[in-house]
Amino acid sequence: MSDEDGATDDGMESSDAETFEAVTRQVLERVTPAGTERARLEAVADELSARAEQAATQRCPDADVMQVGSSARDTWISGDRDIDVFVRFPPSIDRDRLETYGLEVGHAVLPAGHEEYAEHPYVKGTHDGFDVDLVPCYRLADATDIRSAVDRTPFHNRYLEARLDDDLVDGVRLAKQFLKGIGVYGSDLRTEGFSGYLTELLVVTYGGFESLLEAAADWQPPVELDPEDHGQATFDDPLIFIDPTDPERNVAAVCSAENVARLQHYARRLLEDPHLEYFEPDDPAPLTPAELEAHLERRSTTTIALRFDAPDIVDDQLYPQLQKSLGGIVNGLESRGFEVFRVDAFARESAIIFLELSVSRLPAVVRHQGPPVHVRTHAEGFYRAYADDDGVDGPFLDGDRYVVERPREFTTASEFLESEAIFEVGLGSHIETALEDGYEVQHGREVRELLEEFGSPLRRYFEPKP
Amino acid sequence: MSDEDGATDDGMESSDAETFEAVTRQVLERVTPAGTERARLEAVADELSARAEQAATQRCPDADVMQVGSSARDTWISGDRDIDVFVRFPPSIDRDRLETYGLEVGHAVLPAGHEEYAEHPYVKGTHDGFDVDLVPCYRLADATDIRSAVDRTPFHNRYLEARLDDDLVDGVRLAKQFLKGIGVYGSDLRTEGFSGYLTELLVVTYGGFESLLEAAADWQPPVELDPEDHGQATFDDPLIFIDPTDPERNVAAVCSAENVARLQHYARRLLEDPHLEYFEPDDPAPLTPAELEAHLERRSTTTIALRFDAPDIVDDQLYPQLQKSLGGIVNGLESRGFEVFRVDAFARESAIIFLELSVSRLPAVVRHQGPPVHVRTHAEGFYRAYADDDGVDGPFLDGDRYVVERPREFTTASEFLESEAIFEVGLGSHIETALEDGYEVQHGREVRELLEEFGSPLRRYFEPKP
Repeated sequence: MSDEDGATDDGMESSDAETFEAVTRQVLERVTPAGTERARLEAVADELSARAEQAATQRCPDADVMQVGSSARDTWISGDRDIDVFVRFPPSIDRDRLETYGLEVGHAVLPAGHEEYAEHPYVKGTHDGFDVDLVPCYRLADATDIRSAVDRTPFHNRYLEARLDDDLVDGVRLAKQFLKGIGVYGSDLRTEGFSGYLTELLVVTYGGFESLLEAAADWQPPVELDPEDHGQATFDDPLIFIDPTDPERNVAAVCSAENVARLQHYARRLLEDPHLEYFEPDDPAPLTPAELEAHLERRSTTTIALRFDAPDIVDDQLYPQLQKSLGGIVNGLESRGFEVFRVDAFARESAIIFLELSVSRLPAVVRHQGPPVHVRTHAEGFYRAYADDDGVDGPFLDGDRYVVERPREFTTASEFLESEAIFEVGLGSHIETALEDGYEVQHGREVRELLEEFGSPLRRYFEPKP
Repeated sequence: MSDEDGATDDGMESSDAETFEAVTRQVLERVTPAGTERARLEAVADELSARAEQAATQRCPDADVMQVGSSARDTWISGDRDIDVFVRFPPSIDRDRLETYGLEVGHAVLPAGHEEYAEHPYVKGTHDGFDVDLVPCYRLADATDIRSAVDRTPFHNRYLEARLDDDLVDGVRLAKQFLKGIGVYGSDLRTEGFSGYLTELLVVTYGGFESLLEAAADWQPPVELDPEDHGQATFDDPLIFIDPTDPERNVAAVCSAENVARLQHYARRLLEDPHLEYFEPDDPAPLTPAELEAHLERRSTTTIALRFDAPDIVDDQLYPQLQKSLGGIVNGLESRGFEVFRVDAFARESAIIFLELSVSRLPAVVRHQGPPVHVRTHAEGFYRAYADDDGVDGPFLDGDRYVVERPREFTTASEFLESEAIFEVGLGSHIETALEDGYEVQHGREVRELLEEFGSPLRRYFEPKP
């Protein structure tokens, strides 16, 4: 996957073919935490749990503490630094008190931590080099009684712990590293990929990494998986995995059709021609100015970038808003006759709506089709509206309809992008505010100015892969 | 309708509104043949009929002669110079003999005439300044027994003669002049309009010119008229008038949807704001070079003309072939990404495919969408076909499908029009031969060269009306 590593690209040829077993063995060696790394994490997790339990039972004698997540299940990958500690309170205490206790315990355990707000507030901080989430939840008898999403986590933990053995743990580690390698690991709204919980469920359900790949290679979306055979709702998603602990929840709801296809594509590639590259996240070298110019010249599209300050919001807000804005702008352009060739959106300090159009300029006139002449009231109204208008050509007839040719509002895409009309296309709300604060429209070779900040995503754009 | 006559355009305003009765009275005065004109036509027609009868009965004692058409029914318009004489033979003689006799009689009556070929051959010529058709047919008891289309004509004549009175004859004359004025009179394949027989049937059926206009203004195509209530077939035409003498024939089969709409439009205009202009055929002054350049500059379309020698075929062959070729070229352009703005075809000595496009140039790459990744066999074939092709961008994913961007074959419309590919779009056969003999492609201001031959149709093109 790495662009800098010519050797792995050449590796696509059969001349140096490796076996699936050899490749996965090498990957496992890399991703399985060594004894010292594991002992260190367990020691820190145990210490944090003990401190959390003490702080929790001081406030509520019936509280207890549970380690959850991949660190608790030993499905984490060497280098991961995440520890999740859940403090469980009995359902008899009310929600306000749970939140108060939860934050007090969090601050007691992580004095330098800060509060984050999911459905409950919780405390997040670092401790001995680990990223720690200290989350309060209710201790319930049944997952269907949950009061908020975090209450589910202990049930997830219990479900997986009961089913994971050493072989499956290896499979989970391979699957996670593979999904990272192909860029689809994570259920955040930027990635729209596979969560850790979903990955573990898939490996457990299919009985291993290789059998997951074989199944995925043959998937016919929508794929419906429900190992507990208890699903009750219907979902309009390409991948549906009914949560074993909640019959009304699709664990894969966030997973996009493109990422399902991506898993299918790379599953086939890895099975057909096993290589380490598929386990290595792509981090392309920045595109150089000369390369960019060569791409622009070769493609001869009309390239336009809209550049503005990225709004200061979390990625789970930013990326959906960027996608919404991109869709709105594409619709705005296409409805005005500007055929869009390919687009993307990037964000770091700046945010970029990157547009390639098929045309640079449209005629000064635009065809406007009226009603069929035989729809008398409408037709007479249309004819009267334009008959004495010197600014239009027509009305004339095309088949049974009136047609006029009116002056076109925007003859270049830039005119549209630089006009007030851009605020009417359905932008994300924070993007709209950011654009109101000002934006630049860069054309053709001017997009060179993006290379310093976006050289790497621009290589991905101009040298696209599955 | 005349561009040169500003007064009639101003006449659209209500300030000098006229009444429907005043306008039609003036038209009738112009189009009704004066006594001397009528006497002259009748004398010539009678003389031709007598000579035809003598020549026919010499060959077949049972033959007779019938004057048909508008001159026979007194529904002709002042200035018309057409006389139709039908020689009727008994059905007992065979078709070969009928043709032989028919041509012999024709040449006897019109020594300078020439043979034309409809379903039968017949003789056409001029006599004393009149255009004369001398047509042999069978004399049958019932129109459903006809052996060729011309055998129907005597039945048409009889049907109309039995129903026309003086008022209806006036109505027919007004209707014919009106249809000429708005450019839809004639059932030839260039005009695709209303034949004389259809016009007379419509006036007879609706009971006059004004009531025809009122009805047409409210038509909801498909319009089905069947005064004899004997129609048996179904027709996929906008206007269906079942021939009173033949239940299986639509008299209006050739009438295009656009011409039906045109009649509806102008019927409403004439009723709402009566003016003589609607009875005057449009004969626009040729567009000047300066006007053409102003139009091109104002519209900023990409203008291209394909010019070649018009094939030496009759209009009824030429215009359908031009339309077919135009459609093929438009499809050829649009399927290659060139959005067509407006087009037309003209013919005199040269023939012209006149094209206005929305774009002058497309990118050097074209998007090519592959199968969804989950359609495994196709998807793997697509991926393999392009994975190692350095000439394409991708394959990459868009949603659940593979996509590649390939080099575009033609980046300008001219490249396509000047290539062999133009011969693969479905041209009319004679147009194809004409193009094989050579053609020019003129761009932008070069289309000035068309003005000498096509100045008048180019004004119609750039100043379009219903």
